[in-house]
Amino acid sequence: MTQPLAPGSVIGIFGGGQLGRMLAMAGAGLGFDIHVYDPDRDCPAGRVATRICAAPWDDMGAVQSFAARCDAVTFEWENVPAAALDAAQSRTPVRPGRKSLELTQDRLTEKTFIRDAGGGTVEFAEVGSLAELETAVEKIGRPCILKTRRFGYDGKGQAVIRDETDLAAAWAEIGENPAILEAFAPFQRELSIVAARTLTGEVAAYPLAENDHSGGILRVSKAPALVSPGLQSQALDIATAIGNGMEHVGVFAVELFDVDGGLVVNEIAPRVHNSGHWTMDACACSQFEQHVRAVAGWPLGPCSPHSACEMINLIGEDVVPWRALAADYSARLHLYGKRTVRPGRKMGHINRISPLPRQS
Amino acid sequence: MTQPLAPGSVIGIFGGGQLGRMLAMAGAGLGFDIHVYDPDRDCPAGRVATRICAAPWDDMGAVQSFAARCDAVTFEWENVPAAALDAAQSRTPVRPGRKSLELTQDRLTEKTFIRDAGGGTVEFAEVGSLAELETAVEKIGRPCILKTRRFGYDGKGQAVIRDETDLAAAWAEIGENPAILEAFAPFQRELSIVAARTLTGEVAAYPLAENDHSGGILRVSKAPALVSPGLQSQALDIATAIGNGMEHVGVFAVELFDVDGGLVVNEIAPRVHNSGHWTMDACACSQFEQHVRAVAGWPLGPCSPHSACEMINLIGEDVVPWRALAADYSARLHLYGKRTVRPGRKMGHINRISPLPRQS
Repeated sequence: MTQPLAPGSVIGIFGGGQLGRMLAMAGAGLGFDIHVYDPDRDCPAGRVATRICAAPWDDMGAVQSFAARCDAVTFEWENVPAAALDAAQSRTPVRPGRKSLELTQDRLTEKTFIRDAGGGTVEFAEVGSLAELETAVEKIGRPCILKTRRFGYDGKGQAVIRDETDLAAAWAEIGENPAILEAFAPFQRELSIVAARTLTGEVAAYPLAENDHSGGILRVSKAPALVSPGLQSQALDIATAIGNGMEHVGVFAVELFDVDGGLVVNEIAPRVHNSGHWTMDACACSQFEQHVRAVAGWPLGPCSPHSACEMINLIGEDVVPWRALAADYSARLHLYGKRTVRPGRKMGHINRISPLPRQS
Repeated sequence: MTQPLAPGSVIGIFGGGQLGRMLAMAGAGLGFDIHVYDPDRDCPAGRVATRICAAPWDDMGAVQSFAARCDAVTFEWENVPAAALDAAQSRTPVRPGRKSLELTQDRLTEKTFIRDAGGGTVEFAEVGSLAELETAVEKIGRPCILKTRRFGYDGKGQAVIRDETDLAAAWAEIGENPAILEAFAPFQRELSIVAARTLTGEVAAYPLAENDHSGGILRVSKAPALVSPGLQSQALDIATAIGNGMEHVGVFAVELFDVDGGLVVNEIAPRVHNSGHWTMDACACSQFEQHVRAVAGWPLGPCSPHSACEMINLIGEDVVPWRALAADYSARLHLYGKRTVRPGRKMGHINRISPLPRQS
């Protein structure tokens, strides 16, 4: 039986962005020391951590000595190189483990896993060449969407194929990389469920959030989403099957499409997720604390909200009017400590909380 | 007109204990970098800060170079030496300023200030010798309480004088230091109000908390306290007079006795306060964020609670059963990262939140 980590233990985080920063603060709240591994010494998470190990991802000596100082290691970013995880795992427990990454770093593997786990997916096909793309478009029909299998996020590495789209151009647009072709989901709305799974296999989930994307980037999440108890229950079943299938330890998110009152899985994030930031101000226990609890081998805290919440991302220039945001009495402001504004860069978010709708 | 500090600015904190730690995390949440000054490099706040300056309080060179790197400096501890504050002030704004410390570091000065500001106090007298103690006890009557004017906290530096107490022994017990003799307040309960005051003089306060002390240490706070609107309003008036009188910038707390439905001021803490820890889980904006906002020259956030809360301190050995605390579903656990348990040492606290009583 694995022992829970005592307060004062060291939890390591691979990746020093805003998710690592919010994880580090939640970990400190429970009395842990946090060490961060990131190539950038001045990264957002490093500035709130006990120690920052600034080294490249391919420096296995640095990874191993980092891991050797940690009682457990986790990550904020699903594209941590597998070799780094393996090197860390040779010194200390890594939670979640390799399986969660292997099943989600590659879109084709991920969709296949989701289908096999019983979560609905859109129709999809493997694409390794222009000829295979032509065959796949014949089968799936237009419009459809071509995505690189690896290293896509926030809408990057994708090409939409419409009636007029030239397939050779689309294939070139994604760099002729190994890809997956997916049918368009005729969805009414985008939802997500943020769940956590413990070392002992317990799964708990927050209420569904309803999400608005634009330009491939999450803009707004509203939670709890107004859904039927049946849909919430279906989402929990999907999350449970996925969490168990990944043998996941920690928080993960499942992005869903609501298609005619049923749920289709879009993708899995094997980590804390932007659509769970609302939990920071509307739930007793945030997604970041839940993740730390799971990584430490602790029981989960409650996932029930005390308030309703609208989370609004501050992307790029959105953060420039910070004076107005600071003065907005109804906005709980969270800024990530990023030194420079860039278009599309997530700079912070605001949470607007309100009383929960009265139970009828 | 003083400009508000932009996100990315550096806020310095004198003192690296748990209050500094929770201030540091709140400051990071608003995008600030936090530097901590404390003689102990491994102090709780230093482990969540961007930079820890480990140097003695009397190293004025270290204090000045610390302050020179900060856009503003604040403190978690009212016994910061005045010389250190002055040295910092020569390089950067210090908020709150010297006046808040001068009026509260000395119990006699503090009680006189409170009385002059219109807050009720118990009867008190200056004591500088055994002869003055004898005269003061004649005047105030027994039981009464003898306290050193300076450096008392958590019940230290105090001697209770009962019918049978030998005055020479009491005078020896407090080290024959300059002292104040206070009458006992025949209070029904202990209350406190945590308030914040901005650079522009705006004052806001959280609802009153009801506090239980034992052995001179706060054990439990319940908030919002069940009090009449008149008592809440009287407390806000007292806090406003005290905050304005100190020309305070930041959070401060006023400890009060409820004596027959009226309020008597016990003491002032010119900083975030243990009896305000409930705000971390029951209010949209915690006392720590309020303090950072005030120090940064930002407007205050809301002081209204979304939940009711019972805060229970974890003192000394209370933290040993951390497994049970971690598994207590209704307890929001906050641990301070202290390396060793000592009797009377504040190791953490738990907050139990519940829905606010319905308005009648």
